[in-house]
Amino acid sequence: MAPSLLPTPESSGTSTPTSTTAASSLTAAGIKHQQPATNGHGDTSLSPLDASRMTFTQCQTPREVPEPNSPEVMAQKTCTDHMVTARWTSTSGWEAPELKPYGPFSIMPTASVLHYATECFEGLKLYRGNDGKLRLFRPSRNCERMRRSCARIALPDFDAKELEKMIIALCARDGAKWLPASSAKGSFLYIRPTMISTDPALGVQRPKEALLYVILACFPDMSRSLATPAPPALAGAANGNGHSETKKEIQGLKLLASNEDSIRAWPGGFGYAKLGANYGPSLVAQGEARARGFDQVLWLFGEDCNVTEAGASNFFVVWRNKSTNKLELVTAPLTERIILEGVTRASILDLARERLTSPQGSLEAVEVVERKFTMHDLLEAADEGRLVEAFAAGTAFFVAPVGLIHFRGRDVEVPVQGESGDYAKMLKSWLSNIMYGKEAHEWGVEVEEVEA
Amino acid sequence: MAPSLLPTPESSGTSTPTSTTAASSLTAAGIKHQQPATNGHGDTSLSPLDASRMTFTQCQTPREVPEPNSPEVMAQKTCTDHMVTARWTSTSGWEAPELKPYGPFSIMPTASVLHYATECFEGLKLYRGNDGKLRLFRPSRNCERMRRSCARIALPDFDAKELEKMIIALCARDGAKWLPASSAKGSFLYIRPTMISTDPALGVQRPKEALLYVILACFPDMSRSLATPAPPALAGAANGNGHSETKKEIQGLKLLASNEDSIRAWPGGFGYAKLGANYGPSLVAQGEARARGFDQVLWLFGEDCNVTEAGASNFFVVWRNKSTNKLELVTAPLTERIILEGVTRASILDLARERLTSPQGSLEAVEVVERKFTMHDLLEAADEGRLVEAFAAGTAFFVAPVGLIHFRGRDVEVPVQGESGDYAKMLKSWLSNIMYGKEAHEWGVEVEEVEA
Repeated sequence: MAPSLLPTPESSGTSTPTSTTAASSLTAAGIKHQQPATNGHGDTSLSPLDASRMTFTQCQTPREVPEPNSPEVMAQKTCTDHMVTARWTSTSGWEAPELKPYGPFSIMPTASVLHYATECFEGLKLYRGNDGKLRLFRPSRNCERMRRSCARIALPDFDAKELEKMIIALCARDGAKWLPASSAKGSFLYIRPTMISTDPALGVQRPKEALLYVILACFPDMSRSLATPAPPALAGAANGNGHSETKKEIQGLKLLASNEDSIRAWPGGFGYAKLGANYGPSLVAQGEARARGFDQVLWLFGEDCNVTEAGASNFFVVWRNKSTNKLELVTAPLTERIILEGVTRASILDLARERLTSPQGSLEAVEVVERKFTMHDLLEAADEGRLVEAFAAGTAFFVAPVGLIHFRGRDVEVPVQGESGDYAKMLKSWLSNIMYGKEAHEWGVEVEEVEA
Repeated sequence: MAPSLLPTPESSGTSTPTSTTAASSLTAAGIKHQQPATNGHGDTSLSPLDASRMTFTQCQTPREVPEPNSPEVMAQKTCTDHMVTARWTSTSGWEAPELKPYGPFSIMPTASVLHYATECFEGLKLYRGNDGKLRLFRPSRNCERMRRSCARIALPDFDAKELEKMIIALCARDGAKWLPASSAKGSFLYIRPTMISTDPALGVQRPKEALLYVILACFPDMSRSLATPAPPALAGAANGNGHSETKKEIQGLKLLASNEDSIRAWPGGFGYAKLGANYGPSLVAQGEARARGFDQVLWLFGEDCNVTEAGASNFFVVWRNKSTNKLELVTAPLTERIILEGVTRASILDLARERLTSPQGSLEAVEVVERKFTMHDLLEAADEGRLVEAFAAGTAFFVAPVGLIHFRGRDVEVPVQGESGDYAKMLKSWLSNIMYGKEAHEWGVEVEEVEA
């Protein structure tokens, strides 16, 4: 049988492999080698994913690193010189991972991923710390979530630690050049682990071939670029739609609450998993929101209009509880499995429970609550002056304050003190301190760089 | 900007292009050229999809046609010598379609389709008629549905007639060799029009690049191969699960009703569209069903357990109405947009309304009804002896009688007279007569073959 995924000698003018492969020892010393995992099909005779078998092929045509926030970076198409791939078949298990020049894949027109969306991914960042060191933020969480996503979309299982080592090997290799020690404060690269089924059989069935890969991309700072007011062209387009934020400058994200005819996820579906199948179907609603001058869709669910996610981020509210008169930090629960178990979400909840349940400087203590809440609860809190702030939280947008929500013909303004609400600002700064090494914390995982 | 999808000179040992392109005039004479469509973004300055601009590159390394139901055919990986592709960009619209040698695509690791499931497809068949002529069955329906799928997944629009011409051009080119006039009665090839987004930008946004392609595959007769009893290995695996069909031979498909924790589609979602995002997420449930000795999942929806689809097919029941005592042919309605608007489904409804609402030979007349019905309705009808037959209907499985449904620990046996229920048999034969040219009918679209 012809392999469904062949290395393509011609990359798109970006980089070409020339050297032979050689054993690599790039995996981070700090991570212990676990027992080999089974492949998730219960057959231990198949090869497990094993980062220690990784081969390395040096890129011979390295490219220039684009300027921060240059058009190349804004286009979100530029990746670093290398990538990591690992091929899996149902008959042999995982082949040796390859760290090799970044370039296109050769994929058969019948490949499962092109027809049946047998794909999932992760998103995390590589940070250049204030101390000059490279760090990841809780990468084990992404790697474990990737396993859950794979399980939901019938892709093979693997040991999460091995994926983490592959990520670290790529970051170690390309970090020095693509995120130099001279980088501006707050610089990062975006890491995209992905798994696709390359199985060339058209039958609707569990895939028998897959490719796991990790790429490292130059990305703009989304939390900043989108927190500005809508450009005039977009703001103008919004005039006919009954929302009024164009009349004055709104700080923070502007969200358009979803309609009943556009539901992101459903109990018994797959909203909790990072599957391609959750993203493509959201693009029409998101495009409409953008065309009307909003940044993102606020996804509601059910007749009660439960608030679930903002765009591809989790959504948090700080309000004063009507009954107890206490401040609460609230986000939707994971129980129905319709929202993504965000790493930023979990980290915010952890930090808030640790540091915000008693007063913090001038900030009043909050109760930290994961529970269902509705758009009507939110409206009522706004009307009664109990709404303190709201923010989206996720890897791409980080912690992004929300300034306005449009819901069924009505604009709900959310207080934003200056650039951000105080709680969002505090949480963002704590997280940022860990990511950039200002605060030593177990969530910050150092990456040792390879000498080029 | 580097193109995201380049032709790959090395195909996987199957076929390689060598000749230069030349204008092709392969489009069917019988189809009139319509006004050019807009690209669906309201910008008429962009090039519309235009089959008359199609170029042709002859395959120089033709392959052998596999025997019917050989391992190659069962694997569903073998395509014919050529394929049709057409590239789209948001800045230029549709490029000239290319009829060219079948082979792999070169796709960037960042391509939208690999991350966000920006993909949709169609499935139809090319039939070798009893009169020796090649025919398609209502291809315009597939082409129009493909436009609706594209709209749902943020892919570009096109004139359905132009896609139909591209399909016909491919069938005309490869039909003579791959579905020879000497083919056994009932032979067909499977046609898979597909659209994917090749946009290499990682941002979660409407794609700016896409590829429409059509491939022609050797496919087994699914309605026959799956209507046999489960193989011993599978039947054995089912023993522990409380269903009893292994004790005797069950004719027809064996369906496993879905659990509440596995929902195929929901209102406000995209169940009506032929998106990859509907298929990948169903593979785990389907794999479990197969492992337990069932052919397909019967997808239920909601607390009431409404019956929606069987696997990737529509589902029909014939029963005697409890109140009126009349026979009814029932299938789920399209109103909630959670089930696929099948071409076979529509054709069965059309034919049944035309020919079965009065007695047909020895067959009693039926009322043809599109309405919601529940698993409990079905159980009750079975218990009271009112259940006459049930069948799945779709392009891949055609009309496949159902012999057993397992629902929450209970086996519901569905009457099957011999190989098929009488109504399924009659409808299948009418459809088959049109497909294979025994009955002259406007639904059968002849394809004029090209001399090789």
